[in-house]
Amino acid sequence: MMKLLITGFEPFGEHHTNPSQVLIKTLPDAYLGITLVKAILPVHAALAPAQMVKLLETHKPDGVIAFGLAAGRAKVSLERVALNWLDFSIPDNAGETIQHKLICEDGPAAYFSTLPLDRMLTALNSAGIPAEASLSAGAYLCNQVFYTLMDTLAQHKTAIPAGFVHLPALPEQAANSKQPIPSIGLEKILAAAFLMIEILGSPANT
Amino acid sequence: MMKLLITGFEPFGEHHTNPSQVLIKTLPDAYLGITLVKAILPVHAALAPAQMVKLLETHKPDGVIAFGLAAGRAKVSLERVALNWLDFSIPDNAGETIQHKLICEDGPAAYFSTLPLDRMLTALNSAGIPAEASLSAGAYLCNQVFYTLMDTLAQHKTAIPAGFVHLPALPEQAANSKQPIPSIGLEKILAAAFLMIEILGSPANT
Amino acid sequence: MMKLLITGFEPFGEHHTNPSQVLIKTLPDAYLGITLVKAILPVHAALAPAQMVKLLETHKPDGVIAFGLAAGRAKVSLERVALNWLDFSIPDNAGETIQHKLICEDGPAAYFSTLPLDRMLTALNSAGIPAEASLSAGAYLCNQVFYTLMDTLAQHKTAIPAGFVHLPALPEQAANSKQPIPSIGLEKILAAAFLMIEILGSPANT
Amino acid sequence: MMKLLITGFEPFGEHHTNPSQVLIKTLPDAYLGITLVKAILPVHAALAPAQMVKLLETHKPDGVIAFGLAAGRAKVSLERVALNWLDFSIPDNAGETIQHKLICEDGPAAYFSTLPLDRMLTALNSAGIPAEASLSAGAYLCNQVFYTLMDTLAQHKTAIPAGFVHLPALPEQAANSKQPIPSIGLEKILAAAFLMIEILGSPANT
Repeated sequence: MMKLLITGFEPFGEHHTNPSQVLIKTLPDAYLGITLVKAILPVHAALAPAQMVKLLETHKPDGVIAFGLAAGRAKVSLERVALNWLDFSIPDNAGETIQHKLICEDGPAAYFSTLPLDRMLTALNSAGIPAEASLSAGAYLCNQVFYTLMDTLAQHKTAIPAGFVHLPALPEQAANSKQPIPSIGLEKILAAAFLMIEILGSPANT
Repeated sequence: MMKLLITGFEPFGEHHTNPSQVLIKTLPDAYLGITLVKAILPVHAALAPAQMVKLLETHKPDGVIAFGLAAGRAKVSLERVALNWLDFSIPDNAGETIQHKLICEDGPAAYFSTLPLDRMLTALNSAGIPAEASLSAGAYLCNQVFYTLMDTLAQHKTAIPAGFVHLPALPEQAANSKQPIPSIGLEKILAAAFLMIEILGSPANT
Repeated sequence: MMKLLITGFEPFGEHHTNPSQVLIKTLPDAYLGITLVKAILPVHAALAPAQMVKLLETHKPDGVIAFGLAAGRAKVSLERVALNWLDFSIPDNAGETIQHKLICEDGPAAYFSTLPLDRMLTALNSAGIPAEASLSAGAYLCNQVFYTLMDTLAQHKTAIPAGFVHLPALPEQAANSKQPIPSIGLEKILAAAFLMIEILGSPANT
Repeated sequence: MMKLLITGFEPFGEHHTNPSQVLIKTLPDAYLGITLVKAILPVHAALAPAQMVKLLETHKPDGVIAFGLAAGRAKVSLERVALNWLDFSIPDNAGETIQHKLICEDGPAAYFSTLPLDRMLTALNSAGIPAEASLSAGAYLCNQVFYTLMDTLAQHKTAIPAGFVHLPALPEQAANSKQPIPSIGLEKILAAAFLMIEILGSPANT
């Protein structure tokens, strides 16, 4: 039976809710015969990467989709690139900020996502879920976990589909934000996750 | 029995769907004991204002909420101001464009919405529906119908609550747009309409 | 000899510089045979309108261009509409904020600018100065002074060209802003002011 | 004597002017004792990379700053990352578009800029020139030339400072654009280039 690792993040900064956390709590334990191993990562630069590594070692998944929040984006963003770079001034939940630092001193500058992004984009937009490809996952913990994920798989020569997806804010967050940020409903986020899981489980990728 | 006039618009320009039309088609004929008179206006600068005037004369509603699409906005926008101004380069559905023209030669420069905007905004945002007040309804047909509505009521000294609400695009529209425009789900739009109708029907406004 | 009143504002809020103040300090006392009466208004909702009224009474100008800062805009914005509305949460320089209040209890909802906006726009853009017409001057002190200006002229039946122009931030402000706001160089702002002054002084408007 | 290679691009697409081309034409042949080798690259995906390679081989510069246009950006953007990725739907000047293609089949996913970005950013912003670091140079010819530049230097183990800088549109372009894009004056662009050249020529980098 296929097993996918699906991760989200805790709330952080001014965000009292994280749609990726809500998604993880809402997803079932299995879908279309695929086992879903679900985990919520801490927004803690010193801990989150190690948890991702441990999840990979413990569960040996057949594929990984990591989710996070990118408040301000209007569409579900399928990230193409994990960058070897940490640079953030919004403190993580341990109160830390990091400037201009490599994630992995001797790692490559970047990894490409190994998810079937183009198939996923077509499927999402055809289903009426606003989705786009993105060339930068930022330099916050989302990118850190994404880079760690791809670097760990590369180190172990594990050729499974893996990548990162940024979610817009939820309507409830946008309703209470000072700036007019876009949002997307939980039902669309769920539909997006189900579609991406279905694509990973479909013959073309197994 | 209270009677509210609720209007929307046809699709126009590059938009094959208009969320205000979908809203009108989805709303019931009555809600919380309030009769809802529903109408879809043409995106036709020479016809839409006359239809609004006729709807007011025919139905003599106790309140009016006119809805339209503002693709690119992230929140439900409660318009404060109807401006005596037409100026648009995207052709209406009759193929017409209009530059720098008063809607009503001898009318005032503007009218304020008479909807209880602040109560509505508080209610919408508290319910998790992203909403904001807006100081400009543009210079397209939405503003033209809004100005005509307020001018007609002023001419007849009809002191009923009336105003205009701009809706973001639907997710299905954003999914197929070239630019990453924000969107909001139909269920949130419906919830917004029901809340505003409920507020117009509640004691403080009757 | 023609006499124009040209006003700007002090810095306010997080802005240590106000391009409209810099403009006023840089403009000469006369240009193309036109006397320029220059004044810098306080960002103080209780004082600024009275100062504008006094400037009009004292100098009896043949035309007025009031300038202010709209940080975040990318182009010189020629405002079409002065709205009878005050609503701001960024404190003025007296520490005051005002919510949802008419500027003039018995005044009209709005006045149109009486500057020759379309001639000005064409001239500015032809000269390579990014300029646009705007339908909302906001609800801060810029709009308050604009409304007061137009209302005072209307009360005294003074039919002179008068209006308000919002300026983008200066490059020096954008260089030190947290968000990537657009800017425009002082030389372009000066060129814009000279062009608008020249148009007010040219035969078609005298 | 130090020798720097400074490149720009031709106009392309809807842009009749390219600020990077204007910059190259305006820069002198030497500055502060540094020889400036200047070249304008074609916006032609099949030719531009080869020209960059030839410029490097012919001139063997001590440093390289490649400039290009990013219409829509508000600040001078110092690019951190050259990505092994081509994906553009705006045709180049040969009429070609390219989707989802590696620039170099067996090259790494990305290279970091080797310019002293943080020193440059501090210097630019201190001088009142709006500047920012950017994590994505896009997937158009700018990024293609940037990647080719970094890849060629890496192949030849040439450890010189090299990188790419995106420029906002010029005010003249913004004046005639349909959308309100930000702009920055040529004098600021020139000042930015001189500052970056000065930094490359200063002891800390030689």
